[in-house]
Amino acid sequence: MNTVYSINEVSMTFDLRSDLREITSEYDEKKIFLIFEANTWTHCWPLIKDFRPVPESNILILEPGEENKSIQQVIAAWDGLGKAGADRSSLVINIGGGMLTDLGGFAASTFKRGVAFINIPTTVLAMVDASTGGKTGVNFRGLKNEIGVIRQPKHVFLYLPFLRTLDRHNLLSGYAEMLKAGLIADQELWNRLKIFNLDGYDEKEFGRLIWRCVEIKKEIVTADPEEHGIRKALNFGHTIGHAIESESLRSGDPLAHGYAVAYGMIAEAALSSNLLGLTAGAVSEICQTITHLYGNPPAIIKDQEIMLGWMKFDKKNRDNHIIFTLLEEIGKNRVNLEAGEEEIRKVLVNVSL
Amino acid sequence: MNTVYSINEVSMTFDLRSDLREITSEYDEKKIFLIFEANTWTHCWPLIKDFRPVPESNILILEPGEENKSIQQVIAAWDGLGKAGADRSSLVINIGGGMLTDLGGFAASTFKRGVAFINIPTTVLAMVDASTGGKTGVNFRGLKNEIGVIRQPKHVFLYLPFLRTLDRHNLLSGYAEMLKAGLIADQELWNRLKIFNLDGYDEKEFGRLIWRCVEIKKEIVTADPEEHGIRKALNFGHTIGHAIESESLRSGDPLAHGYAVAYGMIAEAALSSNLLGLTAGAVSEICQTITHLYGNPPAIIKDQEIMLGWMKFDKKNRDNHIIFTLLEEIGKNRVNLEAGEEEIRKVLVNVSL
Repeated sequence: MNTVYSINEVSMTFDLRSDLREITSEYDEKKIFLIFEANTWTHCWPLIKDFRPVPESNILILEPGEENKSIQQVIAAWDGLGKAGADRSSLVINIGGGMLTDLGGFAASTFKRGVAFINIPTTVLAMVDASTGGKTGVNFRGLKNEIGVIRQPKHVFLYLPFLRTLDRHNLLSGYAEMLKAGLIADQELWNRLKIFNLDGYDEKEFGRLIWRCVEIKKEIVTADPEEHGIRKALNFGHTIGHAIESESLRSGDPLAHGYAVAYGMIAEAALSSNLLGLTAGAVSEICQTITHLYGNPPAIIKDQEIMLGWMKFDKKNRDNHIIFTLLEEIGKNRVNLEAGEEEIRKVLVNVSL
Repeated sequence: MNTVYSINEVSMTFDLRSDLREITSEYDEKKIFLIFEANTWTHCWPLIKDFRPVPESNILILEPGEENKSIQQVIAAWDGLGKAGADRSSLVINIGGGMLTDLGGFAASTFKRGVAFINIPTTVLAMVDASTGGKTGVNFRGLKNEIGVIRQPKHVFLYLPFLRTLDRHNLLSGYAEMLKAGLIADQELWNRLKIFNLDGYDEKEFGRLIWRCVEIKKEIVTADPEEHGIRKALNFGHTIGHAIESESLRSGDPLAHGYAVAYGMIAEAALSSNLLGLTAGAVSEICQTITHLYGNPPAIIKDQEIMLGWMKFDKKNRDNHIIFTLLEEIGKNRVNLEAGEEEIRKVLVNVSL
């Protein structure tokens, strides 16, 4: 393999085409199925096209976009796999952003009670977050990832050249999860991320930073794959972030996941200060870094009733209490913290000023 | 617990109501969700109704019948769970035949990426087969159990009084899987089943026979939960049986699963004789026992092209070869046997004479 870095089944490669040829060598090409979204079909497939002569009928192209992360599109994927003759010994390769790897992973995990799949994330967000860890799923009744299973991919390949066609908005959406990795687990990473220049970035340094985030996630997920305890560290920024994201989706003006998490982190840093004594200096550093990159939080965050309504629906809750992962300091988190409605209202007001 | 027999998470009880009260004691009653089919709602719910004061809005009643073992009905179940406020710490209790425990198990395993579930099978078939072993799922594109996951229930309760309202046709459908258990693994069990009288049966002896079948299944499934090897023993009669069942469903005159498997076992006993030298005496004993109970195989089995067409779609296949589990002798099976089309045609012709 042409590996730059690797841990277990995840590797960063400088020659994806030949690595794919190698890892699929045990499969007849008729048994290999590729799932793309329209964008990755256009931009990524040409770069790896001739890795194996996979029949064209084995290629499925799905609709992109968070609004298409639906059970209807899973049904379309099952249908496509069935009609093209996939069986339990087949291999599914998901090539796309987090929507696609989540949805394709769920389709593969449930088709004939589970076929093997490889994830090839093509966005920063999918590289550092969605494609590893085994969470698969789709949105349902307007709730994010409401339906899914936890199942580990056979392999995950990170290939930096896929990021070259992404615009700044897309890069930033993934960068928020990178900032989160630093905040929950590694102050030095946070310090490097704060000063990294995303415009005309250095691909080698970006690769190193991305890889450090993957290491952090892998470590946490390996210790707690089913999210009983420490895996919840990854939820920092996500309780309020998911509420922002859900409401923006409902209102017809969907915010990218990373932006919602970024604003969620501003609010949850404030909550960390109130509940765990995170210093004012740290709160201000987090707030400034994020606001500089993402601008000010959207107006919807001001509607406390709506925000609280979404938070009460969160999968992370138990027994109707709203549960947070917060920061004790930069690089150190605490999970399973309950906050009262008054505490939450207070930070929502402050953040939206 | 009021246990007659138990292995791991499966138990046969003589007081289901109080056992349910005990096993759910760690859950608030608002967190307990019950899924019935219309029949079990009418006949079984009254017998256990007051085990806990579960809110009425936590009870879902699904449409019965193999034709409703569909992803649409899974969506209805997800919707019902979501609207009633189920969360990841909830408990789902599935009460019904194999259709219901398979479907309810799949809905629970995928709702919020998996909530715990208990199966309470109410038919012989579900007791000896569907409710244990962790296979969940629904039919799709006319194919049996095409979509699903493997996930173990938290507990399975067998309660013989639920069988008292079943008619002979329903009892026989489950009895076929019991005969199969004897054929693949226990000649003495087969001998007892051959002479057991299903009309006005002795409930204690029936309980012992059912329990022996559960033991056989548990032993096999524990050794190979993901069906890589010896679990395939359970597929005896099912390769041809599934083809019969699928075609009968398509033709609008659906045959009960057990009947299809019973006829499948007649055909696969003949195949066992041709490929593994199962004695003519054993073939005749199997054929007579099954024909005596189930009558002659249906005419559709004569259409070799249609039968072969369905077999080629079977989940159990690899690389387009049709795979069988066959008998070396009564009580002894061999898995992963490939039969050529000519061999299969030959036994289809003979069986349908």
